[in-house]
Amino acid sequence: MMDRGNGTILFRNVVLLDGSMEKAKAADVSVEEGRIAVVAEAGDLIATGDVFDGRGKTALLPGFANAHTHSAMTLLRGLGEESPLLEWLKERIWPIEARLTKEAVRWGTLQAIVEMAAAGTTAFGDMYFFMDDVARAAAETGMRSGLCRGLVGTDEAKVAEGLALAETWDRFEDRCRVQIGPHAPYTVDPEGLKKLASLALERGLGIHLHWLETAWEVDHIRKELKREPLELLEETGLLGVPHLSLAHGVWIDEGDMKALARENVTVIHNPSSNMKLGSGIAPVAALVEAGVSVALGTDGAASNNRLDLWQEMRTAALLAKVARQDPTVLPARKILEMATVAGARSLGFDDVGLVRKGWQADFVLVDLDKPHYTGWDRENLALFLVYAGASSDVIGTVVQGRWIWREGVFSFDDETIRTEAKEWRRKLIG
Amino acid sequence: MMDRGNGTILFRNVVLLDGSMEKAKAADVSVEEGRIAVVAEAGDLIATGDVFDGRGKTALLPGFANAHTHSAMTLLRGLGEESPLLEWLKERIWPIEARLTKEAVRWGTLQAIVEMAAAGTTAFGDMYFFMDDVARAAAETGMRSGLCRGLVGTDEAKVAEGLALAETWDRFEDRCRVQIGPHAPYTVDPEGLKKLASLALERGLGIHLHWLETAWEVDHIRKELKREPLELLEETGLLGVPHLSLAHGVWIDEGDMKALARENVTVIHNPSSNMKLGSGIAPVAALVEAGVSVALGTDGAASNNRLDLWQEMRTAALLAKVARQDPTVLPARKILEMATVAGARSLGFDDVGLVRKGWQADFVLVDLDKPHYTGWDRENLALFLVYAGASSDVIGTVVQGRWIWREGVFSFDDETIRTEAKEWRRKLIG
Repeated sequence: MMDRGNGTILFRNVVLLDGSMEKAKAADVSVEEGRIAVVAEAGDLIATGDVFDGRGKTALLPGFANAHTHSAMTLLRGLGEESPLLEWLKERIWPIEARLTKEAVRWGTLQAIVEMAAAGTTAFGDMYFFMDDVARAAAETGMRSGLCRGLVGTDEAKVAEGLALAETWDRFEDRCRVQIGPHAPYTVDPEGLKKLASLALERGLGIHLHWLETAWEVDHIRKELKREPLELLEETGLLGVPHLSLAHGVWIDEGDMKALARENVTVIHNPSSNMKLGSGIAPVAALVEAGVSVALGTDGAASNNRLDLWQEMRTAALLAKVARQDPTVLPARKILEMATVAGARSLGFDDVGLVRKGWQADFVLVDLDKPHYTGWDRENLALFLVYAGASSDVIGTVVQGRWIWREGVFSFDDETIRTEAKEWRRKLIG
Repeated sequence: MMDRGNGTILFRNVVLLDGSMEKAKAADVSVEEGRIAVVAEAGDLIATGDVFDGRGKTALLPGFANAHTHSAMTLLRGLGEESPLLEWLKERIWPIEARLTKEAVRWGTLQAIVEMAAAGTTAFGDMYFFMDDVARAAAETGMRSGLCRGLVGTDEAKVAEGLALAETWDRFEDRCRVQIGPHAPYTVDPEGLKKLASLALERGLGIHLHWLETAWEVDHIRKELKREPLELLEETGLLGVPHLSLAHGVWIDEGDMKALARENVTVIHNPSSNMKLGSGIAPVAALVEAGVSVALGTDGAASNNRLDLWQEMRTAALLAKVARQDPTVLPARKILEMATVAGARSLGFDDVGLVRKGWQADFVLVDLDKPHYTGWDRENLALFLVYAGASSDVIGTVVQGRWIWREGVFSFDDETIRTEAKEWRRKLIG
């Protein structure tokens, strides 16, 4: 275990890149009490406390946001592999989920945080249950989170649980945001969606829901609900919620994209999960062209099976190119923006995801002195990171200026987490 | 640097899995003089020399074969990113390749070997030029290889170079095979292909060529050569060469697959490269269903940009599922077979790629004691490896019973390689 530090640190001589910069540059970045104080030319700043020296060969990027996952599903990894979505859910996942306890969710979530932190993820968006325990796990480990109680139906007790989550945790230490989480248009009826949308407006909370992950969802909306998907979003008031995040969006129609852009909706793209479950290829290039904000997620570990934003960045870039048979779409710089600032925004943070004075200091540090980075320069660094990089290049993960993980060492007791996660896996599945 | 050992070693208490087994099992594997001597139940064998103790939590798999690459292109990584294939080749790649020297190819290849060895790759298939230097790099580092001089046209000097390569290196230390390497049907005319096919038959060599990577290649064959692709393979005699490997095969027609299966052709699938260049999605599930042998490759580092078979395994599995919108196709076990025994066979080895008595001892050792393997068992290990695994889980790479790489340490001078590769990159590109 490692001390997290006090949130005041100078990152000296790092290679700075974020989603909105034209080029990487050699920089000093000073952080005070968890926020970025000064961004200067390398060599300009004088240390007054802790120093991390990048020696000109460590990249500093905004931390990665895994905008859609179900963390505790680390305990369910490998179950019912290679079967269709509904069969997988009904026969393998839901029966086990019915037996999950608070403790299981706690340790499964912490296990996910272990995996994410070591891969440079500084924030995660989680829809599940026993969310109080998820929030506590994030708080204890120093991770940033955007959380919602997943609602199948609108049972009053569960809705109340979701609102209590917001009361307790929303804005906790400026690292947590709470959303309202209707599971999907096939598990919450239009009346329920309407009710949740007005609750969200009333409480100033965002909405996070699964949306058009599979083709049969579109059929369901048309045949059972007798509407078009966009009409459902409009009629229920979901589209009017200032902060709406749609996970998956595989089957979003091109004609609906302008409306989503106008209403500042975020689509959270989960390329690995969509591929692995055979759900389809989300029209990400078209969404981006239409001006829709797109974030990235891993989905749960049972349908990916990695919790690794590097994997999602690379897969998103490659998948968009082959889908259009055009290598020019969805360039690396855009991919980095999706993985960082767009993800943080989707979780409800407007001062996270860029390296800017006053913003929160969530960073990932990447070792560029590895063989596969030979040839990187200030112009091409984004390309090297997205296409040649991997999570094993990460050497440090920082949230609010505090080390969560550094060169193999966690700032929390990962050994106990691994032992408990193994034990809970055994209890649940054998 | 580390001593490679003498090829005699006992791998004790490892978790053994190869492409043809129903389940993983706890085993002892003894290797004598580079070949597998005994495969027994864990605990049955008594060590007489070197021992590797897997402690029941290290997987031993056949080594990975990267069946199609251009190793020295590590020097060209990041050039002309995100542009279409022909523009990329003509404007960025070919002008630099025209300036490559023997020395550049040597160091670029060694750099690729550094990357591949640390990721568990024990064999690589390489089509390039200055192939004598590629063969020497493989020989020096102990890597297995299947090599061919890439032929654009059938210029006599170049063909002679390809044959001389076979004279010198084919069967060298039982780790090298040489093929004849016509570049592609759009760079070698039908007469040339015919000539090379009969040379291959006469010398008992295999053929390795690029085949239907892009849609315009099919157009070229139909419009310029006035044939169907399968007719071109038949008429030129390529289909009659006992050992024919077709790299890419993205646009192979379903109707032609039976003929490819009948003639024991291997299609080498390069999913990342095909996606990144926007070339298309190879019909891998259909090829496998038709009985065609499919191997995996990374292609060169300039179009991938990793040399990482773990990445290709995962991407191949996910891509096939989303292409068919069916999560049941191309299961993990099949993927492992493609990455190991099918790849080795494609390079010309018939005693490499399975853990069988008498076969050559090429292994990759994988640490299963990592968080993302929580829950693995003998039934699901293939699934965990393909979907949750990554090259950073590799702890040892063994060719002919000798360590090439072990826990971060190479059996050759990787520091000099990295320095020279950087220097050659600078000289070539700046």
